[in-house]
This record gives sequence, structure tokens and C-alpha cells, in this order.
Amino acid sequence: MTHMIDLVIFGGTGDLAQRKLLPSLWHLHRANQLDRVRRIICLGRSGHDTPAYRAQIADQINDAAESDSFLGKLEYLTLDATQLSDFDALSHLLHNPAPAEQTVFYLATAPALYGTICEHLKSSGVLALPSRVVLEKPIGNDLASCREINQRVLAVFNESNVFRIDHYLGKETVQNLLALRFGNSMFDPVWNSHHVDNIQITVAESIGVEGRGDFYAQTGALRDMVQNHILQVLCLVAMEPPASLEADTIRDEKLKVLRALTPITADTVKKNSVRGQYDDGAIDGQPVRGFLEEGGFAQATNTETFVALRAGVHNWRWINVPIYLRTGKRLAERYSEIVVEFKKHPFSLFADDQNHTPNKLVINIQPEESITLHTVIKKPGLSRGIKLEPVELTLTADTDKKQHYDAYERLLLDVFAGDQTLFMRGDEVEAAWQWIDGIIQAWQDVGVNVKPYPAGTMGPAAAQALTERDGRSWYD
Amino acid sequence: MTHMIDLVIFGGTGDLAQRKLLPSLWHLHRANQLDRVRRIICLGRSGHDTPAYRAQIADQINDAAESDSFLGKLEYLTLDATQLSDFDALSHLLHNPAPAEQTVFYLATAPALYGTICEHLKSSGVLALPSRVVLEKPIGNDLASCREINQRVLAVFNESNVFRIDHYLGKETVQNLLALRFGNSMFDPVWNSHHVDNIQITVAESIGVEGRGDFYAQTGALRDMVQNHILQVLCLVAMEPPASLEADTIRDEKLKVLRALTPITADTVKKNSVRGQYDDGAIDGQPVRGFLEEGGFAQATNTETFVALRAGVHNWRWINVPIYLRTGKRLAERYSEIVVEFKKHPFSLFADDQNHTPNKLVINIQPEESITLHTVIKKPGLSRGIKLEPVELTLTADTDKKQHYDAYERLLLDVFAGDQTLFMRGDEVEAAWQWIDGIIQAWQDVGVNVKPYPAGTMGPAAAQALTERDGRSWYD
Repeated sequence: MTHMIDLVIFGGTGDLAQRKLLPSLWHLHRANQLDRVRRIICLGRSGHDTPAYRAQIADQINDAAESDSFLGKLEYLTLDATQLSDFDALSHLLHNPAPAEQTVFYLATAPALYGTICEHLKSSGVLALPSRVVLEKPIGNDLASCREINQRVLAVFNESNVFRIDHYLGKETVQNLLALRFGNSMFDPVWNSHHVDNIQITVAESIGVEGRGDFYAQTGALRDMVQNHILQVLCLVAMEPPASLEADTIRDEKLKVLRALTPITADTVKKNSVRGQYDDGAIDGQPVRGFLEEGGFAQATNTETFVALRAGVHNWRWINVPIYLRTGKRLAERYSEIVVEFKKHPFSLFADDQNHTPNKLVINIQPEESITLHTVIKKPGLSRGIKLEPVELTLTADTDKKQHYDAYERLLLDVFAGDQTLFMRGDEVEAAWQWIDGIIQAWQDVGVNVKPYPAGTMGPAAAQALTERDGRSWYD
Repeated sequence: MTHMIDLVIFGGTGDLAQRKLLPSLWHLHRANQLDRVRRIICLGRSGHDTPAYRAQIADQINDAAESDSFLGKLEYLTLDATQLSDFDALSHLLHNPAPAEQTVFYLATAPALYGTICEHLKSSGVLALPSRVVLEKPIGNDLASCREINQRVLAVFNESNVFRIDHYLGKETVQNLLALRFGNSMFDPVWNSHHVDNIQITVAESIGVEGRGDFYAQTGALRDMVQNHILQVLCLVAMEPPASLEADTIRDEKLKVLRALTPITADTVKKNSVRGQYDDGAIDGQPVRGFLEEGGFAQATNTETFVALRAGVHNWRWINVPIYLRTGKRLAERYSEIVVEFKKHPFSLFADDQNHTPNKLVINIQPEESITLHTVIKKPGLSRGIKLEPVELTLTADTDKKQHYDAYERLLLDVFAGDQTLFMRGDEVEAAWQWIDGIIQAWQDVGVNVKPYPAGTMGPAAAQALTERDGRSWYD
């Protein structure tokens, strides 16, 4: 292989590396997609050595057949990212026996470390090598902290070498949105406010905050899920046709969507947002505790574990189309779904027309990935006249089975290939924070507090009212 | 039952009655849909009596379990429709023991008899009873003969009691066209010249003229199939949304399509039509003889057994959309199909975009009934970028299995119910003949002769050229 890569993982003993990155790398290896990676250098503060680290990963892999060549790529190095002197050993390792043609630094650490790590990489001379950096979300906790991170990272790396991950973009079905919208001539003519009644994006979790209570209390559902996953997905649903599939062309279009999001202000926030916090309840028949008790907070916090928004994209294509967004923890079930609901045709020709919901495109992102078009046909049979019957057309049924891979596998390959299409540019993340910050400010200004909802439901009743006030309803 | 019906079948020993009407009535009986029919009175010139006729039908049914109550409804009466005096016995039968509330006269005879039969029905006093008449296609052989039949029939029956059958309209999938177009809001916005590239209707037969050589030599494929089945189906594809599902509202819209058909004249006929006649060839590996030999003609005839047309509907919705029609005998296989091919999107975003055909809706009418939407999605997998892959969405897969019935069953029920929606009004049939006559006249004026094609192919090469000249091709 001519293009050899060294992959360096900061946080190599952390949750993300162990749960996602190393398994994905192993899958890529088995699929013969990892030939160009020479070494996977995992960094951590704990005093492993390479043999011990390999042994630990070997236990997880639990598949002796092909694991040797994979484990042979793994190296472990003890490094405290806050200590510049620790980077000398990394530099030495990367330069010996000879530098790789490309070095990828994957920062699977707390975002507070991103700036420091980048600066230390530069100071230690490592970046004389051609390098890319991968940043995990969240990029900051608000616009100001995001800007600071971007500035410090971009003082070291060119934007073209910065890969900000939102793993939702690595999902097959999310990319399929582009194929669907721009590979089929029949969707674009109805993909606008003339024909779309509303758009819904739901990211529902059934888990609670688990061990992350302290982090979550600082964050809340709006920052944790809407700022990144939900807005990124919305961008792909709402963006104009790009002039090409080049990364920056697509990201320019996504940015336009983010900048066109109708601000939610003190005047409109009560009508257009609902905050919730789960209380005691039950999931799958098992009793679960409320957020405050689960998080072990000494006193009540006003952190939302659920948020529903009535958003809008203020541009030619989407004016007057409500875009309902919601996410939460301890909801009835775990699923992520986009629904594009078309307008009912203006005229009912069939007697039972009103019994049928309008056409809609339902895009499931998890737990299963699928795209389904909901239509009606004639109810077959000899009864007089034409009666309708719903039929769901699944565009992706077979393909799910053909090949299943984790979003991280796709995104790691793109990093190795230098393809930024599925990664967020700095200005996108900032534009998203700007809109989110406006909502948080409005909540504070007007005093919008969390409403309790029983764990195992779909959020506070007010979230239902958000759509019902418009004469619409969530697609459940 | 309060609404008792006597059904009188002229031509009760003929091919249509034996092959289609009586089996359909039997199926309706088994499905408990024939309760309101008191008697089925079959008329013929041959000297059967009722017991012999019942015995013959019993043989065909070959299902003793439920057949008695069906056979009990059958009566046979010898009648020569040209003899007015023969109608006395019919009148007597219909009045005894008491007239039915409704009498349906089904004329399954040569069209040349339609006028005479109607006049004799009137003269014999039978029509003092509330009556409907059902006419099989063809209604005449040209506009003049069609008008004559319509005038003579309408001198006896009101149009509201005349049911002109085109059994294609009784097919589930053809009715489904209405549900599809007007029950789904997403199709209408693309159902026009802005978004449809072309429409194709194919009615392909693999049989030859068999025993009907003499009739067929007078008729040809244009009159035999295009004037009725193909134009009727085209009407449902092309018509404007009707204001209701009332029979006359729908037929008004169909009539507008027929009247908007671009005339094919001496100036345009060579470019827009192809006539063919099958020669020796093979179907399913078996050698078959050419038309002239099969028909046993003493000398060559110029009758087309194949016709392909490049038609158009000259109105706001369909201007500049080529509508390709073709039908023929001894073609490669038997099928009837409508294809609505959408325009390719204007801009190729994907590298392999040109390998994929545009979206299309494919409506199969026979041998199987189905509706399939052809789209593309992202080819799943880890290869870089987005590659497309075709996927066919079948709207009607399950429903085929649920209930299958013959078109005649549906149409007979509609006659009993007095619902004319799926029947052709006199002015429709005349408008269709007017367009057809123009083509025949143009063929004569310019001398367009049949081109030979080998049996078992899809017609003369010129039929391929008809679409290829436009940069298009038949969907096979």
C-alpha cells in the first residue's frame, strides 16, 4: 500500500473508543477495508502497555481467526494530553521507523481538551507530518465555547483537515436522503411548501441519564441532541439541491438551512417550545426513577430531558411549513425518525377519503434503517365504487439485509480518504449553536420551566398540544 | 330481495356468453353477489331447451355443491333476433309469473344486430318494463356505422340505460388508476407535461387471428384494439380530475381527452404510425404461420395485425408529451401495460446517474395486474460517495392475492346496480372512431402499407424507430 495511515486515538481507553471506534476498526479490518492503516495508536492516561492493551482488545474481539493481523496494528502509549512533555514520546513513535503518509488524530476526549491537544500537537512538532484531526460532538456548550474551540483548532489545522463527527450523518439512511431527493425526479417537484404540510423529526431514547447526570444537568436535551443530530438531519431534508457532491458545496447548502432557521425568541418561545423532565414511571414494564433521583441531585434542577420545538426554515422553499422537532430520554421507545408529510389533496373524490392520512415519507434511522412511502390504492374487490386502502412502500427493505455497518465505519473510511462530505464544517456548528442559544436565552428571559412527564411516555402533554394547536399530530 | 332482475342474454350459445358471461355469473353466484338476479334467460337460434342448456352449463361448472341454485336461474329460449315474431315468446316469459323490477338485455351478438334487436324489443312491447341494454364492443366499424348503431339503440333506450362494455375498464388495476391519481396528493403535481416525459400503452397478444380471419381482415389492429381498449385506458391516464365520481362527470372528462387527441393526418401519418402484418415465425419455440396463410386468404390483404402510433393529447396538461400506443397479434408475449415515464431530473448529481432510467410508473393490466413505481435509492454499503441502485415499489402486491375477479364480474354487478361509470357513453365511442377514421383515411391517402414482422417479435423494426427517432425507447 502506498498510502499508509497512522491513526492516533486520544481517549483510547474511554467509552467511545472501546464501544464504537475499536469495534468499527475491527469490522473494517475484517471487510479488508483497513489495509491502508499502518498503526492504530491508542493514547490514555492509565499505565497500560501495548501487550496489555492488545490483550484487552483481543478479549473483546473474541475471534481468533483474523484478529492477529488487526491486533498487530494496535499500539498503546500512556499520555496525559495536558502535559506537553508527554507528546515527545508520541512524536518519536510517529516518526519511527518512518512517518506515515498521513496521520489522523481522533480526539475521543472531553471537548475542553480539543484546543490544548491541538496546540500540543503543534508545539511538539508532530504536525510537520500531513495530519487530519477528528473531533467528536459536542463542539462546545454554546456559541462562545464552540467558537473558542474552532479558533484554537483552526489555529493549528486547516479547515480542510478538520473532521467534526456527527455519527447520524454516517447512517446509510441519512445518506439515502440525498439519493432519494436528487436521484429521483418525482420527489423534487413536491419537496416544498406547496406540497409538504409539515416535517417531523423525532429522536427518542428510552434510557435515562445513567452515569452522566452531572454532565447532563449542564447540558439538557436541546444542547445534547437538537443542536447536532436533529439539526444535521434537518439540513439534509431541507437543503436546496447542491451543485455537486463536493463536501463544501453540500456544506454550503446545509449552512444556508441553519442560517434560515426562524429564530425562536422571547415573543415566540412559549408557543413554539416545550421543555420536559422525566418523573418516575415505567419502561417495558419495569419501574424507573425520575431524573432528579436518578441523577442524585441535591436540589431540583431545571434541566430538560425532553424538548419539543415548532421550528421553521424561513426561505422560499419552506416558508409556512411547520417543522416539529422532539427528543427526550426515558420515552416510550427508542427510535429516530423523519416524517415528511405531504399536504392532503385539495379535493376529496372518494367517499372514504377523509379516513386516510395524506401521503408521507417516513425515514427510520434507528433502531432499524428504512424509508417508507405511505400511499393509498383502491381497496381491491367487488364492492361498488372505489374505496381506498393504505399501502406502505418500503424503498429499502432488501438493502438493509444486504449490508449492515455502523455509522462509524463509514465515517472512519471517509476520514482516511479525506472526504469531508459527511462532516460538519465549523461555520455549520456555530450557526446551529446560534439558533440554540437563542432558544435558551428566550427560555431564561420568559421563564420557561420544565414540565414533568412520566418515564415511558412521549413527553409532557404540552408536546401534543404543540402539533394539535396547528390541527396536526405527531406521527407515532 | 326487493330488486329482482331478469338478465336476458342474446347470443346465449355464443363464445362470449359461454367463455365469459356465464362463468362470471357463476362466480358472482358463489360469492353471494347474484341474489338480486331472478332469472338468466339465454337466447339462441339453436333448438336447445332449458333442461339441455342447464345440463350443458352444469358440465362446464363441474361443481355440484352450489350449482343447483345457480342452474335453477337459467332458462333457455330459442329466438332468431331478426324475427320480430320470435320476441313474443320472450315477452311472455318476461311477464310471467310477473315482470321483474328490472330487465337487463345483454347483446352478446354481432353489432350489426344491435339496432334490429332494440327495435324488436320495442315493437314486441317488452320495453314497457324498466330495461337496460348492454352492448359489447365493437360499436360499429367506423364513425358512420357507430353513429347508426347509437341512433337506433337510442331511439329505443335512454342513454342512461345503455351500457357499452369495454372490459378493460372492469379491471381492478384500471380502476386503481383513479385511486392512485386522485387519492394520493403526491402524484397529481407531477402528472403533466412538466414532469412526464412520455406515456406508453402496449396491448400485446401472442395469439394469431385463429378462426376470425375474415372478420379480422375487415377490421385490423387499429379498429380492433386501439379504438376501444387502448383509448379507454389512455382516457383514465390522461383525464383531468373529475368533479365527482358520477358516471357522467367521469365520462365528460374522458370525452375531453378523446376530443383533444391530435389528429393524425396525411401530412403526419408516415411519421406517427407503423402498420405491420405478421409473417411466419415462432412463439414459445413453436413455429407459427403468417397471417395470410393462417387466415387462408386467396390473395394478399393489406390488413394490419400490428399498429404503433405516436399520439398526443393536445391540451394544457399534455402538450408535447408523446403518447406511444401499440398493439398486435403474434407478438413475443401476451401483456397489457401502461408506462408513465417521468422526465429525468435536469441535473446529474451522482456519478452513475446516467446509468439509471428515470422514475416511472408501470401499470400491468394483464396477464398479471400490478402497479409498480420505479425509483432509485443509494446503493447500500461502504463504497465511497453515493452510488445509485434501482428499486421497484409494488403498490398492489398483496392485494392481487386477496381477491381476484374477472372484469366481467365487476361490470355485470355495475349493470345490475345501474352504475354507468365504467361504461362508454355514445359520444365517447364516436369521438374515438372519429380519431381512428382519420388515421385510416390518412393511410389510404398516402398509401401506408403493412410491413411484415416475424411472428414472435414485437412488430416491425419501424415500430422501434418510432420511439428512437425521439431519443426514447419502448419499455419492454
